[in-house]
Amino acid sequence: MQNGKERPPIRIALVGHRFMGAAHANAWRQVARFFVDCPFEPVLAVLCGRDEADLARAARRYGFEAISTDWREAVARHDVDVVDVCTPGDLHAPIALAAAAAGKVVLCEKPLANSVAEASRLVDAVRQAGVTNMVCHNYRRLPAVALARRWIEAGRIGRIRHFRGTYLQDWLVDAEHPRTWRLERARAGSGALGDLGAHVVDLARWLVGEIEAVCGLVETFVAERPLEGGGRGAVDVDDAALALLRFEGGAIGTLEATRVAPGRKNHNRFEINGSRGSIAFDLERLNEIELFEHEGPDAGFRRVLATDPGHPYLEAWWPPGHGLGYEHGFTHTVLDLLRAHAAGERPRPDFADALATQRVLEAIERSASAGRWLRTDAEPDPG
Amino acid sequence: MQNGKERPPIRIALVGHRFMGAAHANAWRQVARFFVDCPFEPVLAVLCGRDEADLARAARRYGFEAISTDWREAVARHDVDVVDVCTPGDLHAPIALAAAAAGKVVLCEKPLANSVAEASRLVDAVRQAGVTNMVCHNYRRLPAVALARRWIEAGRIGRIRHFRGTYLQDWLVDAEHPRTWRLERARAGSGALGDLGAHVVDLARWLVGEIEAVCGLVETFVAERPLEGGGRGAVDVDDAALALLRFEGGAIGTLEATRVAPGRKNHNRFEINGSRGSIAFDLERLNEIELFEHEGPDAGFRRVLATDPGHPYLEAWWPPGHGLGYEHGFTHTVLDLLRAHAAGERPRPDFADALATQRVLEAIERSASAGRWLRTDAEPDPG
Amino acid sequence: MQNGKERPPIRIALVGHRFMGAAHANAWRQVARFFVDCPFEPVLAVLCGRDEADLARAARRYGFEAISTDWREAVARHDVDVVDVCTPGDLHAPIALAAAAAGKVVLCEKPLANSVAEASRLVDAVRQAGVTNMVCHNYRRLPAVALARRWIEAGRIGRIRHFRGTYLQDWLVDAEHPRTWRLERARAGSGALGDLGAHVVDLARWLVGEIEAVCGLVETFVAERPLEGGGRGAVDVDDAALALLRFEGGAIGTLEATRVAPGRKNHNRFEINGSRGSIAFDLERLNEIELFEHEGPDAGFRRVLATDPGHPYLEAWWPPGHGLGYEHGFTHTVLDLLRAHAAGERPRPDFADALATQRVLEAIERSASAGRWLRTDAEPDPG
Amino acid sequence: MQNGKERPPIRIALVGHRFMGAAHANAWRQVARFFVDCPFEPVLAVLCGRDEADLARAARRYGFEAISTDWREAVARHDVDVVDVCTPGDLHAPIALAAAAAGKVVLCEKPLANSVAEASRLVDAVRQAGVTNMVCHNYRRLPAVALARRWIEAGRIGRIRHFRGTYLQDWLVDAEHPRTWRLERARAGSGALGDLGAHVVDLARWLVGEIEAVCGLVETFVAERPLEGGGRGAVDVDDAALALLRFEGGAIGTLEATRVAPGRKNHNRFEINGSRGSIAFDLERLNEIELFEHEGPDAGFRRVLATDPGHPYLEAWWPPGHGLGYEHGFTHTVLDLLRAHAAGERPRPDFADALATQRVLEAIERSASAGRWLRTDAEPDPG
Repeated sequence: MQNGKERPPIRIALVGHRFMGAAHANAWRQVARFFVDCPFEPVLAVLCGRDEADLARAARRYGFEAISTDWREAVARHDVDVVDVCTPGDLHAPIALAAAAAGKVVLCEKPLANSVAEASRLVDAVRQAGVTNMVCHNYRRLPAVALARRWIEAGRIGRIRHFRGTYLQDWLVDAEHPRTWRLERARAGSGALGDLGAHVVDLARWLVGEIEAVCGLVETFVAERPLEGGGRGAVDVDDAALALLRFEGGAIGTLEATRVAPGRKNHNRFEINGSRGSIAFDLERLNEIELFEHEGPDAGFRRVLATDPGHPYLEAWWPPGHGLGYEHGFTHTVLDLLRAHAAGERPRPDFADALATQRVLEAIERSASAGRWLRTDAEPDPG
Repeated sequence: MQNGKERPPIRIALVGHRFMGAAHANAWRQVARFFVDCPFEPVLAVLCGRDEADLARAARRYGFEAISTDWREAVARHDVDVVDVCTPGDLHAPIALAAAAAGKVVLCEKPLANSVAEASRLVDAVRQAGVTNMVCHNYRRLPAVALARRWIEAGRIGRIRHFRGTYLQDWLVDAEHPRTWRLERARAGSGALGDLGAHVVDLARWLVGEIEAVCGLVETFVAERPLEGGGRGAVDVDDAALALLRFEGGAIGTLEATRVAPGRKNHNRFEINGSRGSIAFDLERLNEIELFEHEGPDAGFRRVLATDPGHPYLEAWWPPGHGLGYEHGFTHTVLDLLRAHAAGERPRPDFADALATQRVLEAIERSASAGRWLRTDAEPDPG
Repeated sequence: MQNGKERPPIRIALVGHRFMGAAHANAWRQVARFFVDCPFEPVLAVLCGRDEADLARAARRYGFEAISTDWREAVARHDVDVVDVCTPGDLHAPIALAAAAAGKVVLCEKPLANSVAEASRLVDAVRQAGVTNMVCHNYRRLPAVALARRWIEAGRIGRIRHFRGTYLQDWLVDAEHPRTWRLERARAGSGALGDLGAHVVDLARWLVGEIEAVCGLVETFVAERPLEGGGRGAVDVDDAALALLRFEGGAIGTLEATRVAPGRKNHNRFEINGSRGSIAFDLERLNEIELFEHEGPDAGFRRVLATDPGHPYLEAWWPPGHGLGYEHGFTHTVLDLLRAHAAGERPRPDFADALATQRVLEAIERSASAGRWLRTDAEPDPG
Repeated sequence: MQNGKERPPIRIALVGHRFMGAAHANAWRQVARFFVDCPFEPVLAVLCGRDEADLARAARRYGFEAISTDWREAVARHDVDVVDVCTPGDLHAPIALAAAAAGKVVLCEKPLANSVAEASRLVDAVRQAGVTNMVCHNYRRLPAVALARRWIEAGRIGRIRHFRGTYLQDWLVDAEHPRTWRLERARAGSGALGDLGAHVVDLARWLVGEIEAVCGLVETFVAERPLEGGGRGAVDVDDAALALLRFEGGAIGTLEATRVAPGRKNHNRFEINGSRGSIAFDLERLNEIELFEHEGPDAGFRRVLATDPGHPYLEAWWPPGHGLGYEHGFTHTVLDLLRAHAAGERPRPDFADALATQRVLEAIERSASAGRWLRTDAEPDPG
C-alpha cells in the first residue's frame, strides 16, 4: 500500500475554476505523486463552473474527467466523495450546505462565509451531517510557517507577548483598476479584511491563540471604480483594514490588511515576540523563517531556510536549499485533509475555526463603526 | 568667515551627562569641524549634574571648560548662550522654563514634557521669552530619513495612505532587569510610549502630517522589578504601547513601541505607502532607505544607500558608501538649531511641535483607558 | 487545439528515478497542465532503473505506465518519443548514444559527459542522427534568471565587464559523510566542479558569452570518507573548484563551486556588472532578482520579485508575489524542449552547448594541474 | 589619570588634508573623548599640505594649532611626537623615512608603499630607528570585523577552508570620470589593486593567515580619461584586479577589487567558511556581521548587530543597536596605536605587515603578466 495504485481512490468535485480552482486542482493532482503516505489517490472527477466553453477548456487543462455547469448536480453525484468550494464568497454557504447534506467531505476556500451568521449555519450543518470539513488556509501549510508553530509549541520563544501581522498587496493602487467581484460586498462580504485579514487572523489564532477583543479601522481610499461593462460603480468594501488585538493568553497585537501598498505584492508578514525569543516570516520569501533566541551578546536573528527534510512536509520534496513555491501550501492542505479524514480526526482549520475567525473579522468591522474596542464574542448590535 | 576661527562663538551649558549628555556633547564638539557653513563655533562652557566626582570626570572626558552641580546657577550665567537639557523628563520643565526666562536658546531632549499641561506651559514660556527653542528628535536628522522627507515633498510616492511605525527594543525582556528611572512614572512620565513612541509620532507628523485621532493600548508585562538598592518595586509605566492613527490628510496608520521584543535592539522602522510609491526605513540599518516607485513589471523596492554627497547633510562627510552612525543625527540637530538661530527662523521640531506630539501620546494613553478612539485635540477628562 | 486532449501525445522514457528522476517526472506531468500552448501532451511511458522493487514503487508514485530494468529495451521501444537521461554521469553517454541512434529526442541531465572527448562523441552522434537534443540546465529556466537574460539583451546594464559566479553548498562539511557515487571520479567525472560548476559555466555562457581562457584551482579537503558498505575509501574528486575567467567579449570573471561552505545550502549566486548597471541573483531566493541601473544619487539595487505575469514563464502560474519553487525550472525546461521540437528549432542549451561547457570545466582542471592560464579551446596535453 | 586632563599629551603632525586627512584628524580629536583608558591626550599640532590657503582652511576646520607647507620642517619639529602620513602613495616613503629618522611614531595610510622594494626600505628604517609604526587598515577596527576575528580565534567556525573577499566600488564606471592621481601609476602605484585590494589582503591575512601563492588578473577597461586641465591622458593602473589565493594553513580563496561595479558603493565584503561554520561581512552594512554555526536543521546565518557593549571597542560608545559609522574605524586605529605605544608593544598591522601585504599585491600583478601562479615570497623577475 501507500504507493499509488493500491491506495483507495477519492473522487473530487471542484467548484470554481479560476485562480483558486487552478491551485486546488494542482494540489489534488500532485499530493499522491509526492507523499508516499497519502492515504487516498485523489481523482479529479468533475469541475463545475458557469461558462461551458471556459469550463471545458479548464477541465482539459487541469485534467478533470467531467464538467458540470450545475454545481447542485455535481454535489449530488454518488461518485463524488469530496466537494471543494473555490467560488466567490457568496456561494460558499449554499454549496457547502448542499455538500454536507449529501454527506460529502467539504473543503472550502477562505473566508468560509460572508457573515458570522452564515458561518454559524455552516458549522451547524457539518456537525449535524457529521462530515469531515476544512477551510483552506494554505499558509499554515508552508513549511516555514509550520516550523514556526513547531518552535512555539516547543517553547523556544517562551510566552508570547506581541503579534504583528500585516498582509499587504498593491493591486488596487491604481484607481482605474476595474471593480471586480472582489470589490462587491454582496459577493465578497468584505474587501482586504476578509480576503487578506482572514489569513492574518487564522495565523494569529493558530500561532498565538484566541483573540478576545479587537479595535478596528476600515478604509476605502478609492470609492468608485470602472465597471467591466463600462461606466463606474461604487466600491462598498474596504481597501484596507487595521486592528489592535488582545489575545486570551495576555498577548497583544496589530493586524493590517491592505490592497494599496505599492511594491508589496504578497507581503503576508508576521512577527511574534515572546519572553525568550522572536519569530518573523514574510510570504514573499516563503522558504525562509527568522528565529531569534537569547544567546548572549552574539545573538541575532537567524535566517533559517525551511527546506530541510526534517522540516514540516519536506520529507516529500527536494534536498536542502531547493525551495518550494506558493502552490505547495495547497498540496499540503489537501494532504492534511486526507490524512485527517482517513484517521477519523478533525482537520484544522475546520468550519468551527473559520467561525471563530469570522467573529474576529466581524468584530473588527463593527468596532470600526462603533469607534471602540469590542469583545469578539459580543453579540452584534441589533441596530 | 565660515572656517572655524572667524565664526562667532556660542557657549553651551549642558545639563545631564550620561547617555544623552554624551551624545549632545559630541554633537556640539563636532558640528563645526565638519560643516564649513556652521554659523557659530560652539564652546562647551559648562556641564551640569549632581554627583561632583562623576561630573568632573565627564567634563574632562567630553571637553567642558567648567562644571556645576547647580543647574540654576549655570543657566543664569551671562556667558552661556544655549541651555541643552538632557535630564530625565521630570526636570525638563523647570530647567527649560528657567532657561527661557534667562533668554537662552533652549534645546531639550524628547519627550519635551511628561504631560500636555507641562508642554503647554513650556510653549507659552518660550513664546513669551521669544527664545529660539528646539526639541531633539535626532532621527529626523539622519540622511536616510531626511531623504525620505525630500522624496515625499517632491511627490515621488504620491498622496500618503498608510503609515506603519514601530520602535522595538528588547532591553526589558528580562524580568530581572532593574527598575531604573525610566520605569518610574514620576520621573519618566511614561514608558515605551514616551521614550520610543515619541520618536514614532514625531516622524509620523513630519513625514505624513498631523494626527487627528488615535485609538491606543498600553501594556505592562512585567509589573514588578528589582530595585537598585534591593527589594522590588512596582513598575507604573508601560512596557509597550500600540495605537491606530488617523491623519488629517486622510492617511491611516499604526504605531507600536515596545521594550520587550527579543532581538530588536533599536528597530525604529517605518513604512509609508502612497498612491504612487512606498518608502521604508529601519534604524538598525540607518544608512539605507528603501524606495518603491511604479515602473512597470520590473519595479521593485530599491535599496538606496543614503550616503551620497547630494543627500541631506552628506556634503560634510565621506564618499558614497562610507556610512554614518547614530551620533551623527545629533550633530545635524545642533547644526540645524544653529542655522535657524542665526537666520532668526524657527527650528523644527520646536516646543510647539513637541506639544502636538505630547497631545498624541497623551491621547493614546487616555484612549487606552477609555477603550475607544479619541481626537488628539480633545480636552482630557477632568477626572 | 492547445487545450489538453487535442494535443498530440509525446511519450517519455525516463532513465533514473531518484532525485533528478523525480524532478523530471514532475516536469513532464505538469507542463501541459499549466502551459496552454504546450505543443504536446507528454505521456509518462516507461521508467527505467536497476532495482525492480524500487523502480515499481517509483513508477507508481510518479505515475508511469510501465517500468523497465533494461534501459536499452526502453530506448528501443517504438512507442517512445523522448529519452530523458537522469542517471549518474558515466551512463549519460551510452544511453544518449543509443537514444540518438534510435532517432529519439534526447534530454540529458548535466553535466552532459565526464570528459570533452565523450561530449564530442555525443555531439557528433546527435548531429548525425538529426535528433532534437537538449541538456537540462534548469536554472536558465527560472523566471528570475530568464528575466536577467532579457534585461541583458535589452542593454539595460550595458556592456558586461564582470561576472562573479559562486555555487556553494555544505553537504560535505562533515568528514563522516559517506562516499556516494557523486564522490567517485569514475562515475561522476568530477566533484563540485562538474556538479555545481557546470551550472555556473552554463549561466556564464548564456548571460555573458563564451569563455576563452581560465585559470583554475581544485581542492579536496576531505581525502577519505566512509564507504556505505563499511570501511573508508579515497575521494578522487574535488570538494571545491575556483577559477578566474576571461570572456570573449572582454569581460572577466570568477567562478567558485564548493560543497563545504557551512550554511550555504544551495547558494547559486551570480552578479554581473556592466557599463551601465548590475544584476544579482541568489538561488536561495529564487523568486527575486536584483537590478541596478544608473539613476543619479537616488539609485540603488532594486529587488524585483520575478513573479509578474509579464515575466518569463509566468503567464501560466499565479498572481504577482506568489512565488514558484525549484521544480518549476524543470517544467520550463521540458516546455522549451517541446516548443523547439515542435518548431523544428534547436533548443538551448543543447549538446553542442554542453560540449562548450565541458571544455571550460576540463580546462579548469587542466589549468589547476598546470598552474597557469589555459585557453578553453586548447587541445589537452597528450600526456 | 585616564580622564582627559591628567593624560600625557601626544602631539600629532598630519601630512595630507583631504579625504584621509579629515578622517585621521577626526580620529585623533575623538579618541580621548570616548575612550577613558586612552593613554594619551592627542594634540593636533600641525597640518601639512601644499596649497597654503586650502591648508589654512582645513586646519581651522579640523582644529589644528598650526600649518606647514613643508612636511620636512613639520617632521623635524621637536614638539611633534607622531607623524601621520595621509598623502598619495608616492610620498609615503620619503615622509615615513624622515619621520623614522627623526624618532617619531609613524602612522601611514595604506598601501604603505608603491612597491615591495620601497616597503622593505621602510621596514628596515623603522626597525633601525626603533620607532613605533603602524599602517592604517581601518577596517580591522570596525567592531563587526574585530568580532569576526574574535570568533575565529575562539574556534567557532573551525579550521578555515574558504576565503572570499571582494571590494567593489563604482566611481569609475563613467568613462568620462577624470584621471585623478589615483589613476596614475607614478603616484598611486596601482589602481583598484593597491587601493581596495590592499584592504582585502590585509583582512585575509588577519582573519585567515599568510597567503603563500596567488594567481592574478588585472584589467583596465577604460584606457584613457579626461585630464583635469583638459585633453585626455592614458590610464596606467588597473580598474579591476582578481586573484586566486592559497593560504599557508590550507585554505583557498578568491580576491576581487574593482572600481567599475555599478551600484556597489563601498562593497568590501568577505565570507569565510570553516570546517564548523561561516562568517560574512559587508562594509555597506558595517554594524552587522553574519555567523553560521552548525546547530542541526534549524541552523541558519545569524545577523548579529555588532553594537553590544561587550563587542570590540563598544564599551566607549552607545547602547545596543545604536550603530557606528565609517569614521569610527579610524578612531579605533589611533586608539590601538596609542595603547601599543604606551605599552611598548607592536601595533598591528605595522610596516612589516604591510610589507607582507605588498608582496601579495605585487605577486598578483606579476602573476597576471606571467599568466601563472606565483609564490608570494618569490623574488621578482629581474627583467
